[in-house]
Amino acid sequence: MFKNSKERMIAISDGVFAVVITIMVLDIKEPIGNLSGLESHRLVIQLLSYLISFGVVAQYWVFHQELFTNLKTVTIKILIGNLYYLCPICLIPFATTWLSNSFISKESAISFAALMFIVNLFQLWLFRLVINQNRRDRLRLTNHDIEEFWSVKAMLSISVVYLIVSLLVPKLLLVVIGLGILSRVLVTRVIRFYQRKKDL
Amino acid sequence: MFKNSKERMIAISDGVFAVVITIMVLDIKEPIGNLSGLESHRLVIQLLSYLISFGVVAQYWVFHQELFTNLKTVTIKILIGNLYYLCPICLIPFATTWLSNSFISKESAISFAALMFIVNLFQLWLFRLVINQNRRDRLRLTNHDIEEFWSVKAMLSISVVYLIVSLLVPKLLLVVIGLGILSRVLVTRVIRFYQRKKDL
Amino acid sequence: MFKNSKERMIAISDGVFAVVITIMVLDIKEPIGNLSGLESHRLVIQLLSYLISFGVVAQYWVFHQELFTNLKTVTIKILIGNLYYLCPICLIPFATTWLSNSFISKESAISFAALMFIVNLFQLWLFRLVINQNRRDRLRLTNHDIEEFWSVKAMLSISVVYLIVSLLVPKLLLVVIGLGILSRVLVTRVIRFYQRKKDL
Amino acid sequence: MFKNSKERMIAISDGVFAVVITIMVLDIKEPIGNLSGLESHRLVIQLLSYLISFGVVAQYWVFHQELFTNLKTVTIKILIGNLYYLCPICLIPFATTWLSNSFISKESAISFAALMFIVNLFQLWLFRLVINQNRRDRLRLTNHDIEEFWSVKAMLSISVVYLIVSLLVPKLLLVVIGLGILSRVLVTRVIRFYQRKKDL
Repeated sequence: MFKNSKERMIAISDGVFAVVITIMVLDIKEPIGNLSGLESHRLVIQLLSYLISFGVVAQYWVFHQELFTNLKTVTIKILIGNLYYLCPICLIPFATTWLSNSFISKESAISFAALMFIVNLFQLWLFRLVINQNRRDRLRLTNHDIEEFWSVKAMLSISVVYLIVSLLVPKLLLVVIGLGILSRVLVTRVIRFYQRKKDL
Repeated sequence: MFKNSKERMIAISDGVFAVVITIMVLDIKEPIGNLSGLESHRLVIQLLSYLISFGVVAQYWVFHQELFTNLKTVTIKILIGNLYYLCPICLIPFATTWLSNSFISKESAISFAALMFIVNLFQLWLFRLVINQNRRDRLRLTNHDIEEFWSVKAMLSISVVYLIVSLLVPKLLLVVIGLGILSRVLVTRVIRFYQRKKDL
Repeated sequence: MFKNSKERMIAISDGVFAVVITIMVLDIKEPIGNLSGLESHRLVIQLLSYLISFGVVAQYWVFHQELFTNLKTVTIKILIGNLYYLCPICLIPFATTWLSNSFISKESAISFAALMFIVNLFQLWLFRLVINQNRRDRLRLTNHDIEEFWSVKAMLSISVVYLIVSLLVPKLLLVVIGLGILSRVLVTRVIRFYQRKKDL
Repeated sequence: MFKNSKERMIAISDGVFAVVITIMVLDIKEPIGNLSGLESHRLVIQLLSYLISFGVVAQYWVFHQELFTNLKTVTIKILIGNLYYLCPICLIPFATTWLSNSFISKESAISFAALMFIVNLFQLWLFRLVINQNRRDRLRLTNHDIEEFWSVKAMLSISVVYLIVSLLVPKLLLVVIGLGILSRVLVTRVIRFYQRKKDL
């Protein structure tokens, strides 16, 4: 009679992702009065923080949606693993607000980087859970799947770099994360360009 | 022409759950200035409250998603019963904020525990409604279903314990709820461990 | 290539309903310090406003989910009619906050009642659009459908009563709306009781 | 094993749209005390901003839901293009609040118009991506599709007009956007009226 539902696990995840990327905007405060030096400085940092955080969460979502598409059996372990993963995702708006409102203080930068590390850790664990379950259901890893799994591992290593940056030069954290996302996009393009060349 | 829709009952429930666990984060205020003693004390309590509340709501969601998977007929009674259940769920962010902002005062602790009691009561009622409807639709209770139903009854009894704790030692409420969730996880693991042993 | 999608019209509606009933909670402010006379008076009014508004929105949702279940063709007219209907629904959290924060002032009571009147008006219009479309698609109105359509008309008339109450005795508006919802529930029970008796 | 999911791309989009149109309401502040001249002036501007923004977002949603209904293959390019499009959509509540809280200052009007321009640009790009993919999947453009694509191009040109208005007469921006939406509705009606005449 009672059974775990993949549809609902996906529905609550997409709901959480949608609310997270949207409520982060509530923390961008409109400038009061004229756009003086300080006000526009604050606004630029808040907008930049928002855009970087949007990029970070969007990237997690892209991996998350790919992960579950072909999953057949939803065990309670995967269901709860997914909730563990969503918990730090929900904290990203808080970390973003702290970061931008403190003009990227050291404590806030470390918290942001640590949070990304935790999300990446749970993401890796979730990928393992799903891959193991898929194997039990006789699905085999394709080349694309292995590539994605390597990306997830790479994301964990990169978040260690973010942690180090936040400890040494917190002010540059956002720029480094932004470059990190950009470089991933570029690397993917280069890989695809060479693969297409090889295919021809 | 007009007919109750199970898909939509589930969609609004997942929407509510997703928004509830995400907007609770809006109440965690970033520390202002240095992380002094008082500021970090406040932050720790706010984060702890958030994590415990996330655990509480996530647990309700796990039961909720299991409950409806195989339901065939959505009567107006079940539809409205579900709305009664969602109403106190929506109040959890308020109770969490009160709890953390008052540094777990007696009134806030009692309110939080009372709210959990109400949710558990409606949850039990909702399980009864669905089980009765499923029986009418010739679905039989499996061992797993009976186990889940007992868990729901146990949750109601445990929330009475929370109420007593909130009356006697309000400051410990969050710790006790945290231990409650942990112990449920452990008990489930022990039961499964012995069942697997028996199966071999 | 491009086509209106019933699934998405329903998805955005459920999303809006879910967010509306959940963010109304953000306006309940936790009491500061001891629960003095004024503070608890305010809290009671805020909780009462929340519960009544929850009931009002839940009732709209119940009608909304019934309305579209069997709809086959989604015209641009229905799609836009639905957006017109959702617009005042989105304003309900604002009207509720105003009502409770002003301790039910005359202006806020009139606004709340007027908003309900507008929602009811668009609801009636939406029902007409859907019924006409269903007729074109050769679906016939059952007794239950006619009953529901009458309820929607009755809701419009009742909201005129709310408007009058808000003009004459604004302080009683919430109580009257609460009684209105209760009486609807009771009337439905009485009708069903007699129908069951007749059926035996 | 891992695969992009159209269902989830649509789910997160509808979630974002639903949250965006609903949280904009949080910025309408209830009047404090009597509805004096200034207070009611502010309230009227906030309500007007809300209604116009609702219309703007609703219009984007109508095009967005049409766009993906018949899409068969979801490439990573479309998936990411959609996220680029959603990012400025998420910023609309911020731009709306700024606009109304500054009583439509020049800076806020330019920001609002520039944001609309960006959304329209990404919208056009997204339409191109989807049309190209659909062509590869052997779907042909119907007359209706071409009409919609022209509308999307027209929206981009109109947003240039909004930009000019925001530079010259910022106070009139909301009125002009409101007229823009209205005129689109009227033009559509006129076109349909003549088409129906031609069909007879």
